[in-house]
Amino acid sequence: MLNVDGDRLGRRIGELARIGAIEGTEGCCRLALTPQDGAGRDLVVAWMRDLGMDVAVDGIGNIVAMLAGSEGGAPVMTGSHIDTVATGGRYDGILGVLAGLEVVESVLDAGLTTRRPLAVGVFTDEEGSRFAPDMLGSLVYVGGLSLEAALDTLSIDGARLGDELDAIGYRGGAPCPGPAPHAFVELHIEQGPVLEAEGVTIGAVTGVQGISWTEFTVQGQSNHAGTTPMNLRRDAGHVAYRIAAYIREVTHDLGGSQVGTVGKIDLHPNLVNVVAARATFTVDLRNTDEAVLQSAESEVARYARFVAESEGCEITTRQLARFAPVEFDESVVAAVEAAATARGLSHRRMPSGAGHDAQMLARVCPTGMVFVPSVGGVSHNPAEYTAPEDLTAGANVLADVLLSLAGVNR
Amino acid sequence: MLNVDGDRLGRRIGELARIGAIEGTEGCCRLALTPQDGAGRDLVVAWMRDLGMDVAVDGIGNIVAMLAGSEGGAPVMTGSHIDTVATGGRYDGILGVLAGLEVVESVLDAGLTTRRPLAVGVFTDEEGSRFAPDMLGSLVYVGGLSLEAALDTLSIDGARLGDELDAIGYRGGAPCPGPAPHAFVELHIEQGPVLEAEGVTIGAVTGVQGISWTEFTVQGQSNHAGTTPMNLRRDAGHVAYRIAAYIREVTHDLGGSQVGTVGKIDLHPNLVNVVAARATFTVDLRNTDEAVLQSAESEVARYARFVAESEGCEITTRQLARFAPVEFDESVVAAVEAAATARGLSHRRMPSGAGHDAQMLARVCPTGMVFVPSVGGVSHNPAEYTAPEDLTAGANVLADVLLSLAGVNR
Repeated sequence: MLNVDGDRLGRRIGELARIGAIEGTEGCCRLALTPQDGAGRDLVVAWMRDLGMDVAVDGIGNIVAMLAGSEGGAPVMTGSHIDTVATGGRYDGILGVLAGLEVVESVLDAGLTTRRPLAVGVFTDEEGSRFAPDMLGSLVYVGGLSLEAALDTLSIDGARLGDELDAIGYRGGAPCPGPAPHAFVELHIEQGPVLEAEGVTIGAVTGVQGISWTEFTVQGQSNHAGTTPMNLRRDAGHVAYRIAAYIREVTHDLGGSQVGTVGKIDLHPNLVNVVAARATFTVDLRNTDEAVLQSAESEVARYARFVAESEGCEITTRQLARFAPVEFDESVVAAVEAAATARGLSHRRMPSGAGHDAQMLARVCPTGMVFVPSVGGVSHNPAEYTAPEDLTAGANVLADVLLSLAGVNR
Repeated sequence: MLNVDGDRLGRRIGELARIGAIEGTEGCCRLALTPQDGAGRDLVVAWMRDLGMDVAVDGIGNIVAMLAGSEGGAPVMTGSHIDTVATGGRYDGILGVLAGLEVVESVLDAGLTTRRPLAVGVFTDEEGSRFAPDMLGSLVYVGGLSLEAALDTLSIDGARLGDELDAIGYRGGAPCPGPAPHAFVELHIEQGPVLEAEGVTIGAVTGVQGISWTEFTVQGQSNHAGTTPMNLRRDAGHVAYRIAAYIREVTHDLGGSQVGTVGKIDLHPNLVNVVAARATFTVDLRNTDEAVLQSAESEVARYARFVAESEGCEITTRQLARFAPVEFDESVVAAVEAAATARGLSHRRMPSGAGHDAQMLARVCPTGMVFVPSVGGVSHNPAEYTAPEDLTAGANVLADVLLSLAGVNR
């Protein structure tokens, strides 16, 4: 059983976190394709070269470092991303990339060789904070978005993605879409509270929840809160509150993995003594089961129409995002469980509530993910934290699964 | 039966509306004690003097013009205010002042004299848009706020009320509190939709609703909308939606004049995929019956505690405003009804949902109000409109009631 060097992994995480560090916190701001992202990439590529890996950069800036195998063929790939949100932590994505390097270094230190090559990928713009959509680099890698369209993407600050890639020197020559790996396994922090709440160390991720984001706009009539009798109101706010409160009932009725959130609401004119003329709010629904997710969507839409009509309001909707659920490969999921069991680590199967590069790779090869606990479920926040022993446990499980998929020469 | 000159009343309304006119609209911006308010006062005082009235200005800038009566004694007073909100109409308050002048001019034209004096008041800062609280001038007039405290009030733009009074030349020598009138009757636009919706011309106002404004702040925990299971959430937004939606149930259960509005809500961080950490919203409750209003308040507070507790959130409240209901004098209300009946005008008793100077005067003398319809219930808006025939009808009813209270020498 190969054991990674947890201290070395921790040192690399700490060193990368100095680039784009948010002063006074443990967090980072390395928005995609900014100079900070460029400096982070330079450091990671230097580490890859130090390990003797063969580094290729493709047309959208995805970095793939390869450690040759004795028998060649498509590599067993791991990896993630190193871009962060504006108020990011030091683990989200970064752990997956640096644990991949740690596995490679541990293999080299142990004098082992694998039959298939091992590859570590760093995918461009996973967060989507600066360039929409998120998971852009891995989407281009698997052929889900054309390189030309991706290069023409404009950032929230008005810059063109292709120009920003050139500016940091990461528009490479490797082809897009890229070659399909033999398999893909990504280690990531959970970004949710489940593992910590249950005292479990390893999550064997079964797939990624489908996501449905809808913006509802309710148009009513602005009126004086004192002089307008209740039966003459067309209160856009009231309609919004009822629909927003109903989301919880829908999640209870459907049960299972169904979650639902109204995280954003804006009234107009938003004054204490004025009945709202307009309310805009978002509904975020997620489920691992596409059919149930569609039930949730139609139930919310039905109730929204009913409430709006009963108040004499107009309601319009706009789809902000829609992804079907992704199911990971059963053999990879089982391999993660087996590795955790062999190491005596507590584990559970679980879906991912957040999107990850792995869900894009799942389109072209058998794919799985390993989750480790996020303290307090906190992520996208400088306070994001995973205990060193959990980082090490995750990297060890990742090593086991990668080596079992690649085959080790004894 | 004395008939006012509706065209003359309309001309005066149009002339005053030119001062502080909001270009491209029928509306006005004459915030209290600005140069625009000063110019408006100058015009109204000139009209008062043209009518031979004796004009006095008190220490807080209230203007009281008197037309002597044959027998003296405390005057029968009417009036209102000429300050507006920032995006005001041309009728709110103004109608009550200019209809008072129209009644005086009609009395003079008809060669009549009253036994008691007739007085027309213009009260300072009724709107409260620039200096809190609203109805400040009439509150000082009746002794509800000391002159010294009122003069030291700071405006939203940082100016001291006393200095602004001096700047426009309206800090007068008449005493505060002022002398109690024999009775007070105010003509005002409804600012609500009831009269128009029922096709009724005259509202005999029975009192002013009590007002309760409370700001609720719910503190929960910010979490990822995808990765946080429903049973581990402390969703401040969800708590806010349930309480806000419940307000409608409280108003239905209590019935009568009870109204309730959640016109303002703000989430933090207010993002589509983040469970809200904090929600702040306001509850506006009004009722003509103090006991029922208290029931509404305690029922909302009880439910808010229950919902917050069930979601593991903290809830705090802050009282933004609280006024007990005001009941007008039954004989004055009956006089308004009798006048409308005598003129063949449709009428109904109704409470006022908004605050008015009359509710302050009700502390010191028998008081009532006359409402005329607001098209669409629109007020505090340049689109505020009342049909000329309704303005005239309201002024005629005002004339009848003032003359019956003052007594006419035949």
